[in-house]
Amino acid sequence: MNIVEMILKKKAGEALSPEEIRAFARGAADGSIPDYQLSALLMAICLRGMNAEETACLTMEMMHSGGTVDLTAIDGVCVDKHSTGGVGDTTTLVLVPLAAACGAKVAKLSGRGLGHTGGTLDKLESIPGCSVEKTQEEFVRQVQEIGCAVIGQTHDLCPADKALYALRDVTGTVDSVPLIASSIVSKKLASGAGAIVLDVKTGSGALMHTLEDSVTLARAMVDIGEQAGRPILALVTGMDQPLGTHVGNALEVKEAIDILAGRAGGDLLTVSLELGARMLVAAGIAADVADGKARMTEALEGGSGLDRLRQMIVAQGGDARVCDDVSLLPQARHIIDVPAPRDGYVARMDTTAIGYCAQDLGAGRKKKTDAIDPAVGLVMRVRLGDAVRAGEPLATLYINKPELAQEAAERLQSAIVIEEEKPELPPLIYAAVAPGETIRYA
Amino acid sequence: MNIVEMILKKKAGEALSPEEIRAFARGAADGSIPDYQLSALLMAICLRGMNAEETACLTMEMMHSGGTVDLTAIDGVCVDKHSTGGVGDTTTLVLVPLAAACGAKVAKLSGRGLGHTGGTLDKLESIPGCSVEKTQEEFVRQVQEIGCAVIGQTHDLCPADKALYALRDVTGTVDSVPLIASSIVSKKLASGAGAIVLDVKTGSGALMHTLEDSVTLARAMVDIGEQAGRPILALVTGMDQPLGTHVGNALEVKEAIDILAGRAGGDLLTVSLELGARMLVAAGIAADVADGKARMTEALEGGSGLDRLRQMIVAQGGDARVCDDVSLLPQARHIIDVPAPRDGYVARMDTTAIGYCAQDLGAGRKKKTDAIDPAVGLVMRVRLGDAVRAGEPLATLYINKPELAQEAAERLQSAIVIEEEKPELPPLIYAAVAPGETIRYA
Repeated sequence: MNIVEMILKKKAGEALSPEEIRAFARGAADGSIPDYQLSALLMAICLRGMNAEETACLTMEMMHSGGTVDLTAIDGVCVDKHSTGGVGDTTTLVLVPLAAACGAKVAKLSGRGLGHTGGTLDKLESIPGCSVEKTQEEFVRQVQEIGCAVIGQTHDLCPADKALYALRDVTGTVDSVPLIASSIVSKKLASGAGAIVLDVKTGSGALMHTLEDSVTLARAMVDIGEQAGRPILALVTGMDQPLGTHVGNALEVKEAIDILAGRAGGDLLTVSLELGARMLVAAGIAADVADGKARMTEALEGGSGLDRLRQMIVAQGGDARVCDDVSLLPQARHIIDVPAPRDGYVARMDTTAIGYCAQDLGAGRKKKTDAIDPAVGLVMRVRLGDAVRAGEPLATLYINKPELAQEAAERLQSAIVIEEEKPELPPLIYAAVAPGETIRYA
Repeated sequence: MNIVEMILKKKAGEALSPEEIRAFARGAADGSIPDYQLSALLMAICLRGMNAEETACLTMEMMHSGGTVDLTAIDGVCVDKHSTGGVGDTTTLVLVPLAAACGAKVAKLSGRGLGHTGGTLDKLESIPGCSVEKTQEEFVRQVQEIGCAVIGQTHDLCPADKALYALRDVTGTVDSVPLIASSIVSKKLASGAGAIVLDVKTGSGALMHTLEDSVTLARAMVDIGEQAGRPILALVTGMDQPLGTHVGNALEVKEAIDILAGRAGGDLLTVSLELGARMLVAAGIAADVADGKARMTEALEGGSGLDRLRQMIVAQGGDARVCDDVSLLPQARHIIDVPAPRDGYVARMDTTAIGYCAQDLGAGRKKKTDAIDPAVGLVMRVRLGDAVRAGEPLATLYINKPELAQEAAERLQSAIVIEEEKPELPPLIYAAVAPGETIRYA
């Protein structure tokens, strides 16, 4: 296989053959293709695209470039959920216990956060004692026993994706639908998911800023899943403001517990129920989305969701008393309100900037080796469309380094645009993308 | 300077700033930008292009990335010629002595061949004793004394170009007008040329296969030269068959001597006179192209061109008796005719394939470290439009390894297309591209 010929072919806008894509994925995984050739090909893919067959082929080759997780010992369909990432996006901690309480099996391998979005593993580790490391056997046993587990990768999954992802990050080649889609779906397939529900975010805090790009990405991923023979479905949901009100690790765990305890709600709950309902359908538990939502709501109102979170924390070595007393979670030493600079309506938010603000406070990593402070972050006090008066709080900072307060407050103030006229509110659920069908809600 | 931002900018089709282009060229020259980022940017440039300002800026930054040659000690305007490369293209050995005989100063730093086109240095070295290594002082003195010198690079010229060129070769990013134009012109500027005449080849044996691409490349290079304040002009000339009849190192020297001695002519002489005439105009020696051609023709017919080649060979330590007895050049041991497989007219040639055929015989290098056999190559016995009968020679192979004959003959036969109808002949001189003006001849 001549890699230069392959690059020239893609540069000319031609489709690569399955053999070429296999050579590309294997060469990336084993390091036999030098980085400078991989990056030239990645840039050509960014600018010339890949068709559905190429994208599916790349996904399968990346999946098979390393080990895969065997979940066949678990009874029933293991259903997984993946979000393309947003700010204040704690759906996993809300919907995984609820879905498990409804009888679903959720064996979730999750990641750590890099960039402004915190990873679910980091959030779980903010619970005292809670571990995200399990052997493959322990992982399977926990899911079989209590219906859910959220841990870090047990295997060397998708080494081709790992190599390409690291390179894309430093060569300006992240932003490509076939590359994003194949990266996400290859990992979901390798981690053994029997059915997959995707949450593709759109808006100012999302990887994809426009609705059309988000729908295109959702469609690409659903098409791959369909080709791979796995039940798959994607929702396109809004990320024009933080989904939950809490941004930060322990803060987001607190919000999830508050929701499961019935003390909180809002957009985070709405999206969690929509996604969870579809997981129940995909797992063959609910007859349709309405039935799924009814079951999820029952698990929420009856408290069985919070019970299941308690069991998961116990199974993973954590202090489950946090479910009844959130003050046992790590607490920041300084709590500071950020005032609105003037009267008006909250018209727009630069959601990514809000995420970076939490990162600056210590809630996220700038490089892989950075340590996270589980206690810090911020809580939004306004949502889009809210009327505010000058001096009223836009948000509250939870910090351990008071010297960071001033700059964080200023960044938050400039990330939240206040205008005189009441704005139109953006939708929360934009579309559902299923094999052969796209339903637009907005 | 953030290289990833620069890549993203070019990927989005935006123009890079002079500061960004400077950082790119310096980072390439000193190795501080890793190859994988350079190659991603090169691919983005291939697919998104560069405007005239960016191309000129990249040229100047590559020129200034290393040393430059100082030719100011030489009286008069030093005029240089560069060809984008073709098969049987020995114009340098024909026009440099002729132009010098007409009073021009030609201080030429040339290259070795890589690929199917032999380098002028390799051709010169096929003359017994002839050296292409000189100190800067010797080089300048030779040009001052006899009007011409053709040697290898004395300085570390354009290290940025060197790094990028090596990378382009292995990442499928050779084929880009701004990258080709800036690479060629930066080296010409750095080697001290006071005026530049370019020969941009077009056709089946050229870097650019279509006339439009060739004119675009010529225009890009002329625009750069104009911005750099150097008199510059390009001819676009045909490469749909080998320019001369001889392909190979000593064989091409023989043909150049035959032409300078008045024993041969044809397209190689025609193109050499056209280019040389323009060099004389650029050097301020001839009033116009017609005057230039008259002077070149006089130098040819009066024998002063051949005299000047003799002097140059002597000055570079070679055996100048080859000018009077070409049998003193290295001779191949086996001379084998390649017969026409059928009657008809020579309709088309795959000129690049003919070049590779000579390379396979040992006339060219496949890798930098390959040794060249100066004696081997081939002589074309037909030109486009010629009538041939089955069994008559299409070409003659000059070889030292008889076992290569069969395959070479077959490759030549399939590179030369014979058809029943007499074809239309392609033009030889297509266009002249000058600052602000393009004259189309065909």
